[in-house]
Amino acid sequence: MVHPINCLNETHQITLESWVSSANGHDAFPIQNLPFGVFKQAGQQQARCGVAIGDYIIDMHRLYAEHIFTGLADAANEALTERTLNRFMAMGVEAAGAIRLSLSRSLRTGSQHKSAVSRALVPMTEVIMQMPCDIGDYTDFYSSIHHATSVGKLFRPENPLLPNYKWIPIAYHGRASSIYVSGTQVKRPKGQVRVDNKQPPILKPTERLDYEVELGVFIGKKASPYDSVNITQAEQHLFGVCMLNDWSARDIQAWEYQPLGPFLSKNFMSSISPWLISSEALQPFRMPMQRAEQDKHTIDYLFCEQNEKLGALDIQMECYLSSAKMRQNKQPPKKLSQTSFKHSFWTIAQMITHHTINGCGLNSGDLLGSGTQSGATPDEAGSLLELTQGGQQQLAISATEKRTFLQDGDEIELRGFCQNASGLRIGLGSVTGRVISCQSSQIISNTNGHFSP
Amino acid sequence: MVHPINCLNETHQITLESWVSSANGHDAFPIQNLPFGVFKQAGQQQARCGVAIGDYIIDMHRLYAEHIFTGLADAANEALTERTLNRFMAMGVEAAGAIRLSLSRSLRTGSQHKSAVSRALVPMTEVIMQMPCDIGDYTDFYSSIHHATSVGKLFRPENPLLPNYKWIPIAYHGRASSIYVSGTQVKRPKGQVRVDNKQPPILKPTERLDYEVELGVFIGKKASPYDSVNITQAEQHLFGVCMLNDWSARDIQAWEYQPLGPFLSKNFMSSISPWLISSEALQPFRMPMQRAEQDKHTIDYLFCEQNEKLGALDIQMECYLSSAKMRQNKQPPKKLSQTSFKHSFWTIAQMITHHTINGCGLNSGDLLGSGTQSGATPDEAGSLLELTQGGQQQLAISATEKRTFLQDGDEIELRGFCQNASGLRIGLGSVTGRVISCQSSQIISNTNGHFSP
Repeated sequence: MVHPINCLNETHQITLESWVSSANGHDAFPIQNLPFGVFKQAGQQQARCGVAIGDYIIDMHRLYAEHIFTGLADAANEALTERTLNRFMAMGVEAAGAIRLSLSRSLRTGSQHKSAVSRALVPMTEVIMQMPCDIGDYTDFYSSIHHATSVGKLFRPENPLLPNYKWIPIAYHGRASSIYVSGTQVKRPKGQVRVDNKQPPILKPTERLDYEVELGVFIGKKASPYDSVNITQAEQHLFGVCMLNDWSARDIQAWEYQPLGPFLSKNFMSSISPWLISSEALQPFRMPMQRAEQDKHTIDYLFCEQNEKLGALDIQMECYLSSAKMRQNKQPPKKLSQTSFKHSFWTIAQMITHHTINGCGLNSGDLLGSGTQSGATPDEAGSLLELTQGGQQQLAISATEKRTFLQDGDEIELRGFCQNASGLRIGLGSVTGRVISCQSSQIISNTNGHFSP
Repeated sequence: MVHPINCLNETHQITLESWVSSANGHDAFPIQNLPFGVFKQAGQQQARCGVAIGDYIIDMHRLYAEHIFTGLADAANEALTERTLNRFMAMGVEAAGAIRLSLSRSLRTGSQHKSAVSRALVPMTEVIMQMPCDIGDYTDFYSSIHHATSVGKLFRPENPLLPNYKWIPIAYHGRASSIYVSGTQVKRPKGQVRVDNKQPPILKPTERLDYEVELGVFIGKKASPYDSVNITQAEQHLFGVCMLNDWSARDIQAWEYQPLGPFLSKNFMSSISPWLISSEALQPFRMPMQRAEQDKHTIDYLFCEQNEKLGALDIQMECYLSSAKMRQNKQPPKKLSQTSFKHSFWTIAQMITHHTINGCGLNSGDLLGSGTQSGATPDEAGSLLELTQGGQQQLAISATEKRTFLQDGDEIELRGFCQNASGLRIGLGSVTGRVISCQSSQIISNTNGHFSP
C-alpha cells in the first residue's frame, strides 16, 4: 500500500470539531494535527507515548487498555505502549495513518468513544516532555542555499557557494548522544579558538555562541543497508518533523572545521521540540519546489515529477530571544527572524534518497537536520552569524540591549507552524533553551529517557 | 581507585603458562591478553560474551554458572552474561582489571578452577563472531601527521598540513549504524563523482575504493555530559582497542567533502576486528610520545607528564591484500604496508580529553577511530591513496596484477599485534572484508547483534 504525496483525507478537513474543546481553534494542536510525543506525568517513573490534542495529551498506554481500535490502528496503539516511539515509527506511514484516522474519529464531536478516550487524557500542564525516541544516528544537511551563500561569504569571501552545492545535498554526521529535548539548558562550551593569527590558539569559553533554526526530520520505516531508496519511494521512510536548534560555537568552528568539518563547535548540544508532526498531518501544506528556473532539475536520481510538484513544505519557522533583563522587566521576547522551509534547496525526499544512494541504511528514529533555514531576505536569516554579519553589526534586542552573539541568561525559542490558504493551521510547538555560564555545575534537563547504555 | 598508566601486574608476566595448551606461544591470544568479544555458537540464537584464550573462547555466561569468582570479578562476570559488552564496559577499568586477574589465575597451569573453566570453553572454530557492543556514537580522528601531510599534498598541494593540525586533534563524527564486524562483505558504493570539471557530475559506482588502516578505540566508563575529562584522568574512560578499516570512496569524497567534511564516501561501511584488547593488556607496550622536539608540548590542556612519558602505544598494524586470482592460484596475500600506532601525533588520552573539552559526553560502547595510521616512510602508508600517490602510480600485488584502487573480489585484511623488547607478544586479531560488485544483491554479514530499533 503506497502512501502518495498529497493524499488529503478526512482527517485534514478544516470543518472537523472535537469534543476536546481546547482543541478547536488551538494554534498548535487542533484535531487536524495529532502529533506524537513521549511524556512523564509528575511523580511517575515511566515515560509514556502520547498524542497531543488541544491542551491535553492522550496517554496511549492507558488508551490501549480501552481496546477501542481494531486492525492496524490497534497494532499501532500496541506499539505505542512502549516508552519511546521507535517501534511505532518503524511500522511506517500506513500504521501512522491508521491510528491517526482512528484517533481523529474518536475525538470528533459526537464520537461514541468519548468516554473511553476521556479516561486517557492528561492535562499538558501535568507532564514533562521527554525525548520522543532513541536516536541511533544524526545527520545534519545544509539545504538552505541562502544560508550556504551568506555563511560562505563570511568564511570564504572569494568563493561563497562551492561548485558542488547545486548538485549534491551537502551533509555531515552529527552526534546523536548530545541531542536533548526542549527546555534543557545550554552550558556555554569552552574550546580551542585562535583569536590572533600571530599567536597560538587558546582554550576559553566560546564568545560566539549562536543558534541555528532547523527542521528536524525523523525516519520512520527503516531503509535497509546496501540498498538505495528511489526518489519516488523516499517519503515512505519519513515519519515526521519537529523544530531543531543546532547550537553552534562560531569561534571554535572557525578554528577546527578544516579539513573534516564541524566537530566540537556543534556536538555539545542540539535541542529538539518534543512533538513529532506526522508526514500525513503535513499533507495540506505541500507545494512545488521553489527553485530558480535554471536550477529546477540538476541530477536525475534526485528528481521525479511528484517531488518537483509537491515535495516542498511550507513550514513557517520563527526565532525569538529573551534576555535575563527582558524577562525581569516582563518584556516579551524579541522576534529575530521568520522564514519558511519552502525555501529549502533540497526536499526531504531528496535528502533521504541521497543519504542512501551509497547503500547507507537508515534506522527508525534516526534524525536528519535540514541545516539552518534562511530565506532570501536579511530578516529571514536563521542564525546570529548571518543577522550580525559574522558579529560585525550589533543587533538591538530591546531599547537598552544589543547582541552580536548569545550571552549567559539568553533564552532562544524556535516556533514552527503551518497555515494554508484555506485557513487550516497546525503547530509544531517550540524548542527552547537558556544559555548558562561555562562555570555552572547544575544543569536543568528535561530528558531522562535518553539512549545511554 | 585509580588505574595508573603503566601499572604492570602479575597478569603481564611473560613466564605465565596456561593449562589451555594452545594459548602457550599463541601469536594473538596467550594468557597475557584475554580480550573480550561477543560470539554465537553455530545453531544458537543467543549471542554470548566471551574471552579469547588460545584457540578457545570462554563462554562468560556459562562460566558465571560455576560461581568461581568473588567481589568485583563476580560482578563483572554477571555483567558479562548479557548479549553485548556494554554493561561490562561501563563498569570501568577496575572491573576489567578484576575479572582479568581472576581469569588469568584460573587459566594458569595448576589452577584449582581448571575443570570449572573447562566446562565453559568453546572452540573458536565453532563460533561466528558478532559486534562486541552497541555503538552509540562513532568519532573518527585524524591523528597521523604523516597521513595528514601526504593526503593534504594530494587534495591541497599548496597547503598540505593546515595551520590547526599541531594544536587541535582534528576529528569528525561518522555513522554508528554502518560499522560491521570483520567478515562482512563490502558492496562497492555508488555516488556522485565529478570526472570532468567541465561536465556535470554523474552517478556511478566508485572507481577509487580504498581502505584505511586505523585503530578502533572503545569507551568504557561513561564521561558525563557538561563536564570535561582532565588529561590525567582520560585513560579511566578507555576500555580497549581493536583494528578498524574505514573503507573510503575517494572519488565521491573529493566531490562531496567541502565544506562540511566526508559523508557518503565513508558511511557505507566501516569494519572492526571482533576482539577488544583491554587497556590493561596493552600496558607492557606503552612508550613515550614520539613527536619531533619542536612539537613536544603545544597546548596545555592536552598535556601531562605521564601521558608524554607513556601515553603512546606500540601497536603494529599490517595490511594485506588478496585478489580473487591470487586466492584461486593459492598465492598468499600481498602485504601492502606495516606501521605502528606509536607514530600517532595524538595519544588516546589526548583524543578523549579533547573530545570532552566542550562538555560533550561519551557513552560506554562509543567508538573512536584513530584516523588512518601512516608512518614517515612510503611503505608505512595506511591507504592506497597514499601508496599509489592518489592513483598516479600502479602498485604490483603479484607477478601479473597491479592496483591503483580496489577491484571487486579483492579482500583486505588488517592485522594488529604488540611485541615488546622482552619478547612478550599479544595480538589484536584481524579485520577482513571482501569487495563485491555494486550489482550484488546478496551480502554476507557476520553481524546480527547490531543496534537497530
